[in-house]
Amino acid sequence: MSNLESRQFRLIRRPVGHVKRDDFEFRTEAARHPAAGEITVGVDYISLDPAMRGWMNEGKSYIPPVKLGDVMRAGAVGTVIESKDAGFTPGDVVTGALGVQSVATLPTKECTKVDPSLAAKPLFLSALGMPGMTAYFGLLEVGEPQAGETVVVSGAAGAVGALVGQIAKIKGCRVVGIAGGVDKCRYIVDELGFDAAIDYKSEAVSAKLREYCPKGIDVYFDNVGGQILDDCLAQIRLRARIVICGAISQYNNTTPIKGPSNYLSLLVNRARMQGMIVFDYADRYALGMRDMAGWLQSGQLKSREDIVDGIETFPETLQKLFTGENFGKLILKV
Amino acid sequence: MSNLESRQFRLIRRPVGHVKRDDFEFRTEAARHPAAGEITVGVDYISLDPAMRGWMNEGKSYIPPVKLGDVMRAGAVGTVIESKDAGFTPGDVVTGALGVQSVATLPTKECTKVDPSLAAKPLFLSALGMPGMTAYFGLLEVGEPQAGETVVVSGAAGAVGALVGQIAKIKGCRVVGIAGGVDKCRYIVDELGFDAAIDYKSEAVSAKLREYCPKGIDVYFDNVGGQILDDCLAQIRLRARIVICGAISQYNNTTPIKGPSNYLSLLVNRARMQGMIVFDYADRYALGMRDMAGWLQSGQLKSREDIVDGIETFPETLQKLFTGENFGKLILKV
Repeated sequence: MSNLESRQFRLIRRPVGHVKRDDFEFRTEAARHPAAGEITVGVDYISLDPAMRGWMNEGKSYIPPVKLGDVMRAGAVGTVIESKDAGFTPGDVVTGALGVQSVATLPTKECTKVDPSLAAKPLFLSALGMPGMTAYFGLLEVGEPQAGETVVVSGAAGAVGALVGQIAKIKGCRVVGIAGGVDKCRYIVDELGFDAAIDYKSEAVSAKLREYCPKGIDVYFDNVGGQILDDCLAQIRLRARIVICGAISQYNNTTPIKGPSNYLSLLVNRARMQGMIVFDYADRYALGMRDMAGWLQSGQLKSREDIVDGIETFPETLQKLFTGENFGKLILKV
Repeated sequence: MSNLESRQFRLIRRPVGHVKRDDFEFRTEAARHPAAGEITVGVDYISLDPAMRGWMNEGKSYIPPVKLGDVMRAGAVGTVIESKDAGFTPGDVVTGALGVQSVATLPTKECTKVDPSLAAKPLFLSALGMPGMTAYFGLLEVGEPQAGETVVVSGAAGAVGALVGQIAKIKGCRVVGIAGGVDKCRYIVDELGFDAAIDYKSEAVSAKLREYCPKGIDVYFDNVGGQILDDCLAQIRLRARIVICGAISQYNNTTPIKGPSNYLSLLVNRARMQGMIVFDYADRYALGMRDMAGWLQSGQLKSREDIVDGIETFPETLQKLFTGENFGKLILKV
């Protein structure tokens, strides 16, 4: 690999509002050979996630922001090219925060070796990756849905939301998804088996929630925040659980975040609203992956990937998450 | 009691913003004799609570609104005058929703007989009544404080807040109270043993929270909502618990309620915000009262009542809750 080069996006400016190409430098560098305990990986697929927008901002959060000048942080799946760790061999498939680059050299303790016979590589960035683990642990451990309850999920055609709804169906719940556009709504009902879908772009969310959740909402899995969170808060049932997983409607705000005006519904209904971060469940990913892989194999769970070709399209492709253009887990093929 | 009369406040108009005297009719009626299973009670002390403002509004809540024309709902303590229930004798002391009136006739199943040797009558409306049970179950069951943790409570000199802080101290926590005015702040530190107090009327709440809670907030018991809830959200620790007990800053709003803009701190900190209503713990009030009475007797817990004389002052006295004028549990002496 003497001449191996890495094409990479480095963050050079903190974006204001939506991400722009000029916030990054796209450059080619010679790849570094691995030191002891390291591997060099050819990155195959890069995961594009809403959380990446937050990592670009300064300020305290659940992980430090990406430093200016650093390769943009991203989860990815790749193939080992060179190894200085006895546990890894060229050809092994690994996942980890490989970054938005074509070749990465990093300590093996920052990667996870996966079994490529379980599923195609992109699946390790969706149902068997972070979105899958987020949906699995967020719904089951924080939402605690019981059979027969009504579960509402927003961003329902997205990487996490589509899985949340399907897991809730597997657990015997009635599931209503909120998504943007006729195609996504048709998909989650016809293909994924949701009981109903609400198109927030063309329908009145409050009225439709009343229609589809006549007894109210037991679990609301929130990926979007904003007005939809307020609409759901207004219709929760006694002892409802709201899982705060994300707030994509607010991530590009240049004005203060809109807080949920209806939060006193938590008091009236003795309900709770609780945040979750997938990394907290890392010691049980194996359990989650086993269940998810089983459901995929039995056909109870479907995963859809929206794969865009070309690492060079990164800034514009990422933007699809925030305009709602992507359909399924957004992945960049290197 | 052939000539017994009841002086009473009936709600005749739904208040807009702050309560006005004209929202009620103050009238005198002949008291009704009890039917089988009922008692007639001479009302001694009436509890004035923030929640009463909500009961005057139309719309679904945790209990139905007071109907126009009905006696205003209120908790109270009184003495049985006449009984048609073998379990109750004239002279017995009872608590219940006796209403803002001097004499009440009601089914005994809506009252609780209390032991007047435990404490003076007004105490059954404070530490041994709803505020006491709210503080006890709200803090211990929803807030789940652990010894060594930092507990912040707003409305800290109020009926519930003062008890929350003292119970947290008994449980080995560091306690910071937020209250309005120098006197209240001095009281909760010097008399009640809080570790620190923040005067929200003259001090910068955020800066003071940083100073008094250098490790962040583990439990925030919220009685006020509004900006103070946002200030606390910004400084919670990992896995913090926020108890939503009330939102007195918002009850007289004629504009929409201010939602907590910093709610995404729940996500970053994997924290939860949960509402509570004291009535849910009714089957365990006896347990709560036993603990509270024990702490009162041992001197670990102090209760302060702000007793105003004269049922006729009801609308103006109630208003003291919302201007922050009252100091201790606000009670009307009939």
